[in-house]
Amino acid sequence: MSSQIPLLVVGSVAIDSIRTPFGVRERSLGGAALHFSVSASFFTDVGVVAVVGDDFTTEDETVFRERKINTGNLQRIAGGKTFRWEGEYGFDLNTAHTLDTQLNVFADFKPQLSDEAKRSPFLFLANIQPGLQREVREQVDARFVAMDTMNFWIEGARDELLRTIAVVDALIINDAEARELAGEPNLIRAARKILTLGPKMLVVKRGEYGAAFFTRDTYFATPAFPLESVFDPTGAGDSFAGGLMGYIAQSDKIDESTLRRAVIFGSVMASFNVEEFSCDRLRRLDPNDIKARFQQFKEFTNFEV
Amino acid sequence: MSSQIPLLVVGSVAIDSIRTPFGVRERSLGGAALHFSVSASFFTDVGVVAVVGDDFTTEDETVFRERKINTGNLQRIAGGKTFRWEGEYGFDLNTAHTLDTQLNVFADFKPQLSDEAKRSPFLFLANIQPGLQREVREQVDARFVAMDTMNFWIEGARDELLRTIAVVDALIINDAEARELAGEPNLIRAARKILTLGPKMLVVKRGEYGAAFFTRDTYFATPAFPLESVFDPTGAGDSFAGGLMGYIAQSDKIDESTLRRAVIFGSVMASFNVEEFSCDRLRRLDPNDIKARFQQFKEFTNFEV
Repeated sequence: MSSQIPLLVVGSVAIDSIRTPFGVRERSLGGAALHFSVSASFFTDVGVVAVVGDDFTTEDETVFRERKINTGNLQRIAGGKTFRWEGEYGFDLNTAHTLDTQLNVFADFKPQLSDEAKRSPFLFLANIQPGLQREVREQVDARFVAMDTMNFWIEGARDELLRTIAVVDALIINDAEARELAGEPNLIRAARKILTLGPKMLVVKRGEYGAAFFTRDTYFATPAFPLESVFDPTGAGDSFAGGLMGYIAQSDKIDESTLRRAVIFGSVMASFNVEEFSCDRLRRLDPNDIKARFQQFKEFTNFEV
Repeated sequence: MSSQIPLLVVGSVAIDSIRTPFGVRERSLGGAALHFSVSASFFTDVGVVAVVGDDFTTEDETVFRERKINTGNLQRIAGGKTFRWEGEYGFDLNTAHTLDTQLNVFADFKPQLSDEAKRSPFLFLANIQPGLQREVREQVDARFVAMDTMNFWIEGARDELLRTIAVVDALIINDAEARELAGEPNLIRAARKILTLGPKMLVVKRGEYGAAFFTRDTYFATPAFPLESVFDPTGAGDSFAGGLMGYIAQSDKIDESTLRRAVIFGSVMASFNVEEFSCDRLRRLDPNDIKARFQQFKEFTNFEV
């Protein structure tokens, strides 16, 4: 069999500036593809399709190297500047306030996929322009494709977005996005509506309230891990998706039981991610920490019938 | 042994006017003690300590009679008017907007307890003036006492409230109330703080997001039942408390395993309550419906380790 990348993600790699009530970091490595791949790398081999400028240094790339993330599809644009996001959180850490976004090299991003990337069985389309997501989706002969999106595309590129949603297996979005996409305030009805758009599965991220997982016939929900200190929520959703897709790729199964555990592993990874700036916490995570927190999920949600 | 009422509740019995996006009901039987007792009556014998005016008719009292609720401690004030609450919900059914409150006979309410009420082993102090809650608490030789409260008392009668909280076993309040009471935006830290005020247990109601249960050493959380249509949220919190306390009283045990199931039974009863106006849905509920929904909770929260 020809070589392949077990799990592929396309999305942003960014240099963020972040302010939270607990601190400021002027240069924080971020972007959906970065958070996703670092998280997924604890479960399987993962490759990143993205673009950076030459302000993304060799030192910065350590984050990929130390997690053995495949950067064969990471374009470097000489003289270009990396995607920048500046955001702020108040004491309600559920909502990010964007202060500034600079697309930079991302504005003209044309994903170039290697042959081994095109053979990836598992693919995640992180939150980028939906036309670009579809372009990548069509190049990859994947067995299972999931995607994220955001209000910006739901409002500004709805038709394009619907065409992309129609060709994926799973949608992984947050609560407000699900309601907005469906035009329906009740989440359960919103989910039912979304599952008529093409995907067989919907995972709804609810921040501090946990996550819910819908198929046409099944429902699963979990509370979030009880954290006493949430330091920086940036990337929580992407590390959630990374844990989820990483676990599915590792298991190489797509049944209900695997998917439920995948939602828990997603929740576990998101809970670590928010404990520090950027993916600092994940970078020094021991795989046993993941197992222990997964076990804690079982304990704090279990009751006897 | 002298006769006793297995579970006692003190609180309001009210005539509500309710507007939701789905309908209007001008005369809706309500009040915390009514919602609580109807819900709890599916688990154990329950008695109500409350006051009504003579506009609360014999026909209205059917709600208690048909559920065999003990009204020996329900005062009827001739010429008095029953407590009235007028409220409205928008499409965000999580928050009630109070349009009008008339205390009426409730303004001079002096709880008079019969001897069998004073011997109740389980007592719930529904949301009323905290001084009144304590007065009742001191009269009842209960084994286990839980209470509710609201932002109005947290803000306007804090010292009085803290004195009452200090003499109960469990506090059952909502998310925002817990954060406000503790002066702490993080719920887990808020819970930890509240558990230094006296109670050994805290149950946090989170509406459509479920419930969390804290002791000093343990944590349990559950998502809510996935409802496609929430019709009228009035009384959800009280039917939650009714299911919870009813199940504990029925089990006559206060261990972790019983309490976790009690939180689920509370969630089950709240989920039925919100499906129709007032307690209409509970009034024609079959006990098998409760068992079935409890089982569904197990199914939609379960995952294999």
